[in-house]
Amino acid sequence: MMLANKQVVLKNYVEGYPKESDFELRSSMISSHIPQGSKGLFVKNLYLACDPYMRHKMSHHISNDVPLLASFNPSSVIIGLGVAKVIKSADADFEEGDYIWGMTAWEVYTLILNTNGLFMIKYTDVPLSYYAGILGMPGLAAYIGFNNLCSAKEGDVFYVSYAAGGVGQLVGQFAEMKGCHLVGSASTDEKVHLLKSQLGFDDAFNYKQGNDLARALKRHFLKSIDVYFENVGGNMLDEVLLHMNLCGRIAVSGMISQYNLKKLDGIHNLFCHISKRLRMKGFSEFDFWHKVPEYLEFPIQLIREKKLLFVEHIAEGLAKCCINFCWYLLWAKCWKEDFSSFN
Amino acid sequence: MMLANKQVVLKNYVEGYPKESDFELRSSMISSHIPQGSKGLFVKNLYLACDPYMRHKMSHHISNDVPLLASFNPSSVIIGLGVAKVIKSADADFEEGDYIWGMTAWEVYTLILNTNGLFMIKYTDVPLSYYAGILGMPGLAAYIGFNNLCSAKEGDVFYVSYAAGGVGQLVGQFAEMKGCHLVGSASTDEKVHLLKSQLGFDDAFNYKQGNDLARALKRHFLKSIDVYFENVGGNMLDEVLLHMNLCGRIAVSGMISQYNLKKLDGIHNLFCHISKRLRMKGFSEFDFWHKVPEYLEFPIQLIREKKLLFVEHIAEGLAKCCINFCWYLLWAKCWKEDFSSFN
Repeated sequence: MMLANKQVVLKNYVEGYPKESDFELRSSMISSHIPQGSKGLFVKNLYLACDPYMRHKMSHHISNDVPLLASFNPSSVIIGLGVAKVIKSADADFEEGDYIWGMTAWEVYTLILNTNGLFMIKYTDVPLSYYAGILGMPGLAAYIGFNNLCSAKEGDVFYVSYAAGGVGQLVGQFAEMKGCHLVGSASTDEKVHLLKSQLGFDDAFNYKQGNDLARALKRHFLKSIDVYFENVGGNMLDEVLLHMNLCGRIAVSGMISQYNLKKLDGIHNLFCHISKRLRMKGFSEFDFWHKVPEYLEFPIQLIREKKLLFVEHIAEGLAKCCINFCWYLLWAKCWKEDFSSFN
Repeated sequence: MMLANKQVVLKNYVEGYPKESDFELRSSMISSHIPQGSKGLFVKNLYLACDPYMRHKMSHHISNDVPLLASFNPSSVIIGLGVAKVIKSADADFEEGDYIWGMTAWEVYTLILNTNGLFMIKYTDVPLSYYAGILGMPGLAAYIGFNNLCSAKEGDVFYVSYAAGGVGQLVGQFAEMKGCHLVGSASTDEKVHLLKSQLGFDDAFNYKQGNDLARALKRHFLKSIDVYFENVGGNMLDEVLLHMNLCGRIAVSGMISQYNLKKLDGIHNLFCHISKRLRMKGFSEFDFWHKVPEYLEFPIQLIREKKLLFVEHIAEGLAKCCINFCWYLLWAKCWKEDFSSFN
């Protein structure tokens, strides 16, 4: 059967901040036929995730030595994580009507030829969109980053940048459960309010206010930082290094402030690694796909009991994916609008 | 008894490269009397170590939150590690004629009031000067850094910068014993020759030759670097990040290229921490003083069997301490002369 499809195509490599003109909304026809011999699925996409790592893949990287961070192919549909419903299945593990999440594409229908890394959605008493968030990759990132890299203990001063983001808000809540003194930063007063009033942050600040990051950190960290969960990079990292405690840990999950820059910011304070015996470790949740089943059992009951919250921003309609993505990467400017539905 | 003493005094905080005029050779009289109630020692210094961390202490640091890296006091004798002979002892653990090593001062005679952290020299069949090098702090640094931070295994590509230095030459030999593919860099062809011909390096290069570090690394690392033992910092670190392998480890022991700079070099490639899941950890051997007895048992037999070598540069006379220190920190320019006795 032939079906009308719509796709978001990356027209060319993106330089600087993404613009709507970097994307094209393309109409086409797609066959629901699954090629013989393939154990593929034909799915209808329901929720598509807009994740920061995707911006990295929109740039042209000469050495694509890390497959999952390799550049997208221009003129092709954008590949990303999403939640979908199975229309047809040639894989005995899935059947028509099942809900799944995993790697799909920014289009209405997708023919997924390789079902490795797709997950059947087991718990449907929570919003399906959660599988693109708290029960999907951002959740896994927060879980792995927090448990494997932070060595957080009760009483630690724990700082999360980009704290209202998908990963940040979860890491924060995990740290709060551990009994850490939890501080977050975000780019608007609304988000700061959200962190303190709903997400369990002991303190939070708008890092843009006053345009003096050094001063903001001094004011909000009377005691040095034991754990820094790094989501932004750049000047924030440089200043935070000066505020780290002896034997502090830095878990590097993302560097969103850098993804639109041609030349990345220079970090000048790495000598703190010696003077303070710091440990800084990067990770990618993609390496821990095998941990998904273990992870899912952890938050599900907490979500049901409202002990773990997740604040989503959902844009309706495929066309909005690209507009939304531009917004997303201009988060510094646009989160206010993104969060309007939560105020 | 009053004795004629000579001291090297730091006249004022050093800015930029140290100059001879930053130091003063001061003559004075010193009493060999050990104050009553003190368990101190009166010693004659035999060898004084010129270690890079001392340059850090010659600058003015506003927050001296790491005691061992705190600024020196201007107009005071310079404090540092050395080898000494006990002239008088009020501590039952030491007696006249004993040889010790530990924290002393750049002067002929020193009254050491606190004997914590002083070590009796047990093995005297090796040169006494070794206790300011391979059997002292550089040895401990290499041992701790290699064993605790590198996770090196057979076949790993192991890179040491400043490889002909006190720590670098030892780390390299440890890596070689482990079966790593060992590469080092140094600033002169003589040192490169030394690394390859005597110290077991599989490959070594003069990082100054051609003035193109990126190219030099490309040429010498056909396979990516699994472990980088960091002694220099700055542009070297920035370039090395691009050559690290997935899950590479960076042990940060020193950043000697930065100690004379007012504004440290900016490091632009830290995103590699995420894309390559790097671990970067700083350390200070001063945290591992309690490991000295354990460490000493490891190299002593290897030294006797000439399976572990140590190349020293010894300047004779106290006056040369400061001159030598200026040279040392200008290593880029002066090592050639320093090494002349080994050619």
